[in-house]
Amino acid sequence: MNIATIKGFKAQGVRAGLKTKGNDLAIIYSETPAVAAATFTKNRVIAEPLKLDKKNIKNGVAQAIVVNSGNANACTGRKGYQAAVSMAATVAKALGIKASDVMVASTGIIGREFPIEKTIPAIIECAAKLESSEEAGHNAATAIMTTDTVKKESCVSFTLDGKTVSIAAIAKGSGMIHPNMGTMLSFIVSDLNISQKTLSALFKKAINDSFNMITIDGDTSTNDMAVILCNGAAGNKKISSLSNKNAKIVLAKMSELCIDLARQMVKDGEGVTKFIEYKVIKAKTEKNARDIIHTVADSSLVKCAFFGNDPNWGRILAAAGRAGVSFNPDKVDLSINGFKMLAKGQPLAVDLNKVSQSLKSREIEVIINLNAGKAQAKGWGNDLTLEYVTFNSAYST
Amino acid sequence: MNIATIKGFKAQGVRAGLKTKGNDLAIIYSETPAVAAATFTKNRVIAEPLKLDKKNIKNGVAQAIVVNSGNANACTGRKGYQAAVSMAATVAKALGIKASDVMVASTGIIGREFPIEKTIPAIIECAAKLESSEEAGHNAATAIMTTDTVKKESCVSFTLDGKTVSIAAIAKGSGMIHPNMGTMLSFIVSDLNISQKTLSALFKKAINDSFNMITIDGDTSTNDMAVILCNGAAGNKKISSLSNKNAKIVLAKMSELCIDLARQMVKDGEGVTKFIEYKVIKAKTEKNARDIIHTVADSSLVKCAFFGNDPNWGRILAAAGRAGVSFNPDKVDLSINGFKMLAKGQPLAVDLNKVSQSLKSREIEVIINLNAGKAQAKGWGNDLTLEYVTFNSAYST
Repeated sequence: MNIATIKGFKAQGVRAGLKTKGNDLAIIYSETPAVAAATFTKNRVIAEPLKLDKKNIKNGVAQAIVVNSGNANACTGRKGYQAAVSMAATVAKALGIKASDVMVASTGIIGREFPIEKTIPAIIECAAKLESSEEAGHNAATAIMTTDTVKKESCVSFTLDGKTVSIAAIAKGSGMIHPNMGTMLSFIVSDLNISQKTLSALFKKAINDSFNMITIDGDTSTNDMAVILCNGAAGNKKISSLSNKNAKIVLAKMSELCIDLARQMVKDGEGVTKFIEYKVIKAKTEKNARDIIHTVADSSLVKCAFFGNDPNWGRILAAAGRAGVSFNPDKVDLSINGFKMLAKGQPLAVDLNKVSQSLKSREIEVIINLNAGKAQAKGWGNDLTLEYVTFNSAYST
Repeated sequence: MNIATIKGFKAQGVRAGLKTKGNDLAIIYSETPAVAAATFTKNRVIAEPLKLDKKNIKNGVAQAIVVNSGNANACTGRKGYQAAVSMAATVAKALGIKASDVMVASTGIIGREFPIEKTIPAIIECAAKLESSEEAGHNAATAIMTTDTVKKESCVSFTLDGKTVSIAAIAKGSGMIHPNMGTMLSFIVSDLNISQKTLSALFKKAINDSFNMITIDGDTSTNDMAVILCNGAAGNKKISSLSNKNAKIVLAKMSELCIDLARQMVKDGEGVTKFIEYKVIKAKTEKNARDIIHTVADSSLVKCAFFGNDPNWGRILAAAGRAGVSFNPDKVDLSINGFKMLAKGQPLAVDLNKVSQSLKSREIEVIINLNAGKAQAKGWGNDLTLEYVTFNSAYST
């Protein structure tokens, strides 16, 4: 099952000619207006489509998403904004829905005039070809790729009130091959029956524990966004509050799906050879744990060390020390791949060759125990490689 | 002139055997107790010598600085702290001064037992060899190097009340070759006659505009410190307040010296091929300007672009956008090496090949005009290179 085969949804991907090759335009469509929630980049510099989306999502309803790759439509001024408006209007006309129920997303090169003349006919073609098939869903998934080496899809199904509910998604990651901005896009659809307010709250939590806990290179894009549409076609009893017993199940499944997508993004980061799971445990607050994970996972020195199979706990501890979190270094335990490197702030006698050998596996686990409280968090990062630098230093013209 | 030839000072550098080769222990000595000020790393994880220094500097007086390279004496617990105490005591005994007037600094590998048994005899040797000669100053400058490829020294002289005043310094940079932590150390001496309170205030300002405005890889060390000693031997009328007309002159000269050292550090960063000066102008506040410089200069994407001679203003703008500063992207002008890339948020038609050609010079200038106010700041960064990753991923054992 994928985004095109969830009850009441259709999708498709076609070629508009914005990328040098391959599909580069996708539409996801719900046969009925769906309750919707979205999050957008926190960057002060935001792409034109997102300015439109922020208006369109205000009423909590959406019925279609149109996405192009190849041009980010960012730093393109009034003309760029007008292009986003035209994209929504074209989708609306082709599908007989309201323009204000269309979400628009773009990813690709920044600061280049948006080729709306190529995009409009592709939208019309794509809308005409929408269908409920696995292939259509895959087409949409590939059409949103930029530097991604693999398409990213995920799906979960579960039972509520005896009804089967499904959530499916496509995403693109933040691999940052020049000259594109590395943009994180996630489009999630479900036949779940839920109130908009509850959906918003659950989606925010799921995103906090997934997309917000991955670090590839710390650079956030002007175009990042995640959208979820729920059309209620599963027929479960409507979930209208967070205290509803089914809300907890939905959150768990939604988080599972988002974490799966987030992991796919990290693993497909540019030139990545290692996937690292960071756990900070026994922190005073969850925020403390999250802040330390972000700083450690984003440290160039830590990332280089993992690229070189180097169990350099000193760099990890030093990065934690500059995370803006108050903790006592003399209480910290630290382990890498199950090897205890540090106990109560003191280095232990460990066979570093053995630890280094274990780092040659593609997946690495780091646990930092602050021994300061009961909160914890989990996050994901990767290594900094020669390939990353090579890719990202290639001249753009 | 250098740190060993400033009136009333002596210095020397010798070999203790903590590094695989070369001098690795230095002492700087003032014949009379000097007024002193110091700043230390903001990292929560701080090296043992710094814990002692924070006590010793409290009275604002110091007479000697002892520095070793090769071992950072960090994460070494009570034994490490005891080693720092022994270093200070040995210097004090050898020179007939108070142990509490000795500042101790270490740089090198983290989390390895400190070889105090090799250090003590070297301190005694070094103290016996202290002298006022250019060579002695250079010896001290080389003894504090770790991964630095060149020694870092600077000196300024000027006239106050008809007296010649000099300030000289040695420093080591934050080039980050494994397995050492990249530590920023600066030891500054002067024959200036000044009150401790005024010195503290001026030193803080000078550091804010120099060492605090450079970004190499965002990783701060457990051992970073800067110390200044002023012994009054120049015989100028004592400067006892910031409003004294000579305080302004001293600040300008002290800043000049610190900026020179900071630039030397950036240029000697690991694998660095480019030196980039960032100016943020017409900001609402100076803090805004500084925050944007730090975020842009630390962006892996921006740094990779400069490595590749790529005038990628989109990455610069996007990094500025996530600096936590509120600004209007539609008002931003941006220029690279004098080429105006962006005006009022809109990309200009520029010959990118020409801009790229200009980026092949070793020094690059980026100006970001926020058109939001009257504040400004200046800072320095470098590029992210294949050599950086190669160096920092080498296995430590």
